[in-house]
Amino acid sequence: MDFAHDGATLALTERAFAFVREHALPAERVLDEQLAAHPEQWGDWPIVKQLQERAREQGLWNLFLPGDPEVTGGAGLTNVQYAPIAEATGWSPRLGPVAFNCAAPDTGNMEVLNDFGTPAQKDQWLRPLLNAQIRSAFCMTEPAVASSDATNIGTRIGRDGDHYVISGRKWWSTGAMNPEAAVFIVMGKTDPDAERHRQQSMILVPRDAPGVEIVRPLTVFGYADRDHGGHAEIVFDDVRVPADHLIAGEGDGFAIAQARLGPGRIHHCMRSLGTAEHAVALVKERANERHAFGRTLAEHGVVREWAAESRIQLEALRLLVLKTAWLMDTVGNRRAMTEIQAIKIAVPRAVQQILDRAIQLHGGALAEMFAGIRSLRIADGPDEVHLASLGRAELRE
Amino acid sequence: MDFAHDGATLALTERAFAFVREHALPAERVLDEQLAAHPEQWGDWPIVKQLQERAREQGLWNLFLPGDPEVTGGAGLTNVQYAPIAEATGWSPRLGPVAFNCAAPDTGNMEVLNDFGTPAQKDQWLRPLLNAQIRSAFCMTEPAVASSDATNIGTRIGRDGDHYVISGRKWWSTGAMNPEAAVFIVMGKTDPDAERHRQQSMILVPRDAPGVEIVRPLTVFGYADRDHGGHAEIVFDDVRVPADHLIAGEGDGFAIAQARLGPGRIHHCMRSLGTAEHAVALVKERANERHAFGRTLAEHGVVREWAAESRIQLEALRLLVLKTAWLMDTVGNRRAMTEIQAIKIAVPRAVQQILDRAIQLHGGALAEMFAGIRSLRIADGPDEVHLASLGRAELRE
Amino acid sequence: MDFAHDGATLALTERAFAFVREHALPAERVLDEQLAAHPEQWGDWPIVKQLQERAREQGLWNLFLPGDPEVTGGAGLTNVQYAPIAEATGWSPRLGPVAFNCAAPDTGNMEVLNDFGTPAQKDQWLRPLLNAQIRSAFCMTEPAVASSDATNIGTRIGRDGDHYVISGRKWWSTGAMNPEAAVFIVMGKTDPDAERHRQQSMILVPRDAPGVEIVRPLTVFGYADRDHGGHAEIVFDDVRVPADHLIAGEGDGFAIAQARLGPGRIHHCMRSLGTAEHAVALVKERANERHAFGRTLAEHGVVREWAAESRIQLEALRLLVLKTAWLMDTVGNRRAMTEIQAIKIAVPRAVQQILDRAIQLHGGALAEMFAGIRSLRIADGPDEVHLASLGRAELRE
Amino acid sequence: MDFAHDGATLALTERAFAFVREHALPAERVLDEQLAAHPEQWGDWPIVKQLQERAREQGLWNLFLPGDPEVTGGAGLTNVQYAPIAEATGWSPRLGPVAFNCAAPDTGNMEVLNDFGTPAQKDQWLRPLLNAQIRSAFCMTEPAVASSDATNIGTRIGRDGDHYVISGRKWWSTGAMNPEAAVFIVMGKTDPDAERHRQQSMILVPRDAPGVEIVRPLTVFGYADRDHGGHAEIVFDDVRVPADHLIAGEGDGFAIAQARLGPGRIHHCMRSLGTAEHAVALVKERANERHAFGRTLAEHGVVREWAAESRIQLEALRLLVLKTAWLMDTVGNRRAMTEIQAIKIAVPRAVQQILDRAIQLHGGALAEMFAGIRSLRIADGPDEVHLASLGRAELRE
Repeated sequence: MDFAHDGATLALTERAFAFVREHALPAERVLDEQLAAHPEQWGDWPIVKQLQERAREQGLWNLFLPGDPEVTGGAGLTNVQYAPIAEATGWSPRLGPVAFNCAAPDTGNMEVLNDFGTPAQKDQWLRPLLNAQIRSAFCMTEPAVASSDATNIGTRIGRDGDHYVISGRKWWSTGAMNPEAAVFIVMGKTDPDAERHRQQSMILVPRDAPGVEIVRPLTVFGYADRDHGGHAEIVFDDVRVPADHLIAGEGDGFAIAQARLGPGRIHHCMRSLGTAEHAVALVKERANERHAFGRTLAEHGVVREWAAESRIQLEALRLLVLKTAWLMDTVGNRRAMTEIQAIKIAVPRAVQQILDRAIQLHGGALAEMFAGIRSLRIADGPDEVHLASLGRAELRE
Repeated sequence: MDFAHDGATLALTERAFAFVREHALPAERVLDEQLAAHPEQWGDWPIVKQLQERAREQGLWNLFLPGDPEVTGGAGLTNVQYAPIAEATGWSPRLGPVAFNCAAPDTGNMEVLNDFGTPAQKDQWLRPLLNAQIRSAFCMTEPAVASSDATNIGTRIGRDGDHYVISGRKWWSTGAMNPEAAVFIVMGKTDPDAERHRQQSMILVPRDAPGVEIVRPLTVFGYADRDHGGHAEIVFDDVRVPADHLIAGEGDGFAIAQARLGPGRIHHCMRSLGTAEHAVALVKERANERHAFGRTLAEHGVVREWAAESRIQLEALRLLVLKTAWLMDTVGNRRAMTEIQAIKIAVPRAVQQILDRAIQLHGGALAEMFAGIRSLRIADGPDEVHLASLGRAELRE
Repeated sequence: MDFAHDGATLALTERAFAFVREHALPAERVLDEQLAAHPEQWGDWPIVKQLQERAREQGLWNLFLPGDPEVTGGAGLTNVQYAPIAEATGWSPRLGPVAFNCAAPDTGNMEVLNDFGTPAQKDQWLRPLLNAQIRSAFCMTEPAVASSDATNIGTRIGRDGDHYVISGRKWWSTGAMNPEAAVFIVMGKTDPDAERHRQQSMILVPRDAPGVEIVRPLTVFGYADRDHGGHAEIVFDDVRVPADHLIAGEGDGFAIAQARLGPGRIHHCMRSLGTAEHAVALVKERANERHAFGRTLAEHGVVREWAAESRIQLEALRLLVLKTAWLMDTVGNRRAMTEIQAIKIAVPRAVQQILDRAIQLHGGALAEMFAGIRSLRIADGPDEVHLASLGRAELRE
Repeated sequence: MDFAHDGATLALTERAFAFVREHALPAERVLDEQLAAHPEQWGDWPIVKQLQERAREQGLWNLFLPGDPEVTGGAGLTNVQYAPIAEATGWSPRLGPVAFNCAAPDTGNMEVLNDFGTPAQKDQWLRPLLNAQIRSAFCMTEPAVASSDATNIGTRIGRDGDHYVISGRKWWSTGAMNPEAAVFIVMGKTDPDAERHRQQSMILVPRDAPGVEIVRPLTVFGYADRDHGGHAEIVFDDVRVPADHLIAGEGDGFAIAQARLGPGRIHHCMRSLGTAEHAVALVKERANERHAFGRTLAEHGVVREWAAESRIQLEALRLLVLKTAWLMDTVGNRRAMTEIQAIKIAVPRAVQQILDRAIQLHGGALAEMFAGIRSLRIADGPDEVHLASLGRAELRE
């Protein structure tokens, strides 16, 4: 048993953290200006391009993608090695991940293409995504149903000769307002009568396919999130794509979604820890600066209590995230599902609590962080669904 | 001991609730359209004027103001009688209170003028406020200090012959972006060397006084809140106003602020309960409609648990609010300070928790409600300051 | 709406509270000595008799029993009027209630006899109970089943000519170790095939009936509770009693149990509040006496926070208890079931939390109080069952 | 980074766990019988001796003691290696640790002697302790003061020629009722005027020294804990011991106490995890056996939620304990103080919560476990003191 990162990881983390501190965080104000100057724009921000170029030069690029770098074009880090780097990017949720081309939902989409894509699909979509030439969206959630139950999906993907025809309405498709998002991975049903988890398939839909209508942007806890392409409501109205746009086979959609979720969830958790550490650092700074009732805030009992509780939660949960990463590395994502579920529930909830208390001390400046974390708790099924599932497994004899 | 409202109150509440249900809530979509059509506008919304006119016709007007209606122009309700009406308006935080001319910060400002204003001040400002001809703002919070400690206030109000000269920077001045907000009540120090709670004074500053600069709008948890005039950063740069614009005497600012806070806080609590009840009703509706894993959401144990816990919290806290109102009515605001402090801490916190869990079931549609309630927990001093104060009192021998 | 108790209630409460403070609390040490001197004895403590005699002289007797005093022999208080008196007795859970002949389970048993007993049953058992000449037990819980589901009851009550024959095993029969407990009210099934809630009946079983075997005393959270007769495991081995010992009719057992539970639960809640107030008072005293790290404990932020949170919880929950009492008085126990369920869940849980934190400050001296309160949370069905039931009702359309 | 235990540790853990399951847990009933048969006896239980003999034969002996086995007579395990073994013993808090001669307070006392004892002290006391020929107690806590502040200690250790004279009153001296406890380590002040943390010294006091009076047994949350020697109040009335009984030098008491606390705390945490796992296993078994409302308890949502939450807490906290152990092994106890403090706060609190909820499902059978864990939260200073200290460190710039 060894709780130390290897030397290469420590060095890379240091580099990543320095980048975030020196480049990403200061760039947030630049991004604000660019956002303010172009109130109708949803992507293609110059500052993002600059950061990406600089990060790529420093070898801080596509670090999320495990596997042989020769094959994947990634960096070949294990999940354990990637963890502290992802955490570093979480200090600037707006610019850290995207600077390293490690931002959701592109990461998940790249993984899907990497794991399940045909050579042609990889050529057409994975390569430009790995180069940040295009971006992508993942179209899963639908209006008016409990999306945590995959059998509720209403979008249809019907075979018609050499094509599939897609019809349905999706929302909260993150990133899809950004015109750079050239491709959507859409989840729909190819066979509603099949066995519960074989009804669904996934298909690649180019943004410019006829019948794709970006209806409107939605806000997440008050934020339009124009930084990264927002959250779109999209109608697919008899959209025809060639049959080779299907990912893997018919009925594989649920399995691909499950495969995609593991890394996606742990990456969110890793970054969330960084966000929480940033909040702790901001509070610490302010608590030592400001005075109330004759003492610094840092000398008030309740502030100390907060700092201690935050530290305990972060240390324990970071270890749980790392152990989960280690399991994914050593026994595979499938056998780490219980742990993935555990961190998916526990980390955003704890980080939300930490941020909530930080806001009491530091004020509304942390509200955007809060909204980002808060949304994770319903992003792919509310916590409660995962708790019930984890509990069922735990009680199974 | 009697837990029933009197008949007149029940009748008025029913009327108020019907108004909110039939007019205010459906009008929210109209307001959204007006907001979307005028993205640079911060007030003067036609739908608000229409609601106000209709509410006034129905006698649902200025119900917040206690005291003899002949003198105050209010309705002469006790706090206990106003409580269920305020709760009804809380079902539509955006349009309920303003429809009845019972929205913060105007209510607090009207109370200050009613209780401490000279006849001339009442003529000039209270009368048009009671008629909703103008609106107002309250300028208290300042950047970069712990505002919960009143000795931290940096704004200066200096006497200069027949005038006072005001200099300072305020932010989170709610409503001040709205050009209808014709007057600001500004808290500043007239004598920084006086005893701790005699340093501050309050003064009326017309919006159009030279030197008043509305710097920019701030957002609260992601929301600009253009509905009701947003939250402004304001610079007062050697603003000169006649000496008779001072409210009460020099050094009375802290005492006025305290007097203003009692009713302001309990009104927020009353409305918050209505907001929570609305969220509970929305969840209930959805939980019976939607299915997951073969049952309605209402049949899932965790949803029942949520519903039960919410009901318990709301029933207990409503009673605490009502008892506080009853104390204010019977022994006065000053002797109800402990109870006011208790509800100020407990109600928004519980309602936030109820909304947080409601969001897990009902999704982001409740996010704006959440942001509104969340902001109450730091609005006039973070909960923690009030907890410490309440605890000190409780432990005093 | 009126939150003040009437004058008579205030006066009686003052009297009751003075008695508890001056007689019951100081008598606890005497009881300890009597317990230590007679380690095998389970009741008939001289100090209890003395307190009862004195309380009865002062008119502090049977105050729990509502209804016409001429008929019931009680004091004819409403539930609202009894609430603060019961709270006073809760300051000394060991001696307060029993001194006033208001201790569970006798109170519940007296209510059952008062409401459902025949004149002969009242003569034989209710009269001596009202005079504290005998005590009683209630035999409901059984080993190895989830007793919260009444259909799980295994004890049989079979008709045999002019008699009923009772067979079964009960445990946690509070008070039954005390030889003064002359009669047991036993819940069993007369018809296992009847409709779910018509299977059960209740019957009076004299302690000395052949076949009644007191197997052993059980402890509750480490306490044998010899003060009040402990908690017995009892075997009923073909116990024959005359048929007129049945309470009400066959199949009425569940309904009687439900009727018994309402008052029983609210009385527990009332007393619990007093126990919590006592703990708060003890902590307050100690926090002002003791020093750590250069300040009194009362000056530490975390102690203030505790005191404030305890105060908020107690004030809110007391009001919920009082409102429930008022509903029982005005619309009847049946229509107050939701509120009774709410306080049954919320009050012991909050008081446990208050005591848990008090123990951090005051040490193990509060452990017996803690055990008493803790046991309420599983006493007649765990909280979780009540939460689910309350939630189901709340979500019903 | 590696989350796997080494093979030797896994094998030893399996052996330890098998012993606990096959010998210690079944022996609890035997111990109950021996306790019942000798109600005045406080130690020297035959079943304990038998278990110890058997465990020693299996090499499950003194595993807690790190360092070279040749020198210490221990097993030379690292803290990381000992962790899962200690956890296994925690499944039977009453008999697991003592069977392996790894029970508090002897472990801490052996460590003190091992680290700070003179050869003569080791010969006289450490050797028989390592052989379980005698037991010991640690006399630190005093009545009527906040013991978490070491300057509050009132016991005096005065030099008088070749002797020290000890005077003072201690309580909650765990194990001291057991006549086998042949030696007490007593904390007192040798120089009340010295610098804050140099006032205290520790000294070895033989049980049979004149002036040592065992006043009475105290209970911990209702339990006398006769299993392991209970908790004694002790008066030291001018007790004279030779000067060479002092441990290390005058003024070293605080430093020794700190050194003793690290391992003591982490051992408690390790065992607590095992206790919680045992409770989870018991609940799981029962939840699958019992039915309520037409389903097994395991199928109820609230039970699943409990199981999931317990699992998450246990996994995260076990990792934090292991990391702390690893830090102690690699950088030393002193530099692991923050982590030790963190687990000292977090683990017993979480385990208490897990047990509290387990009791709702499994009933009072877990009450003794609960009492044991609960007492840890005040055992060497209440959580709140440690939280404040941890928070202070965390906020230090």
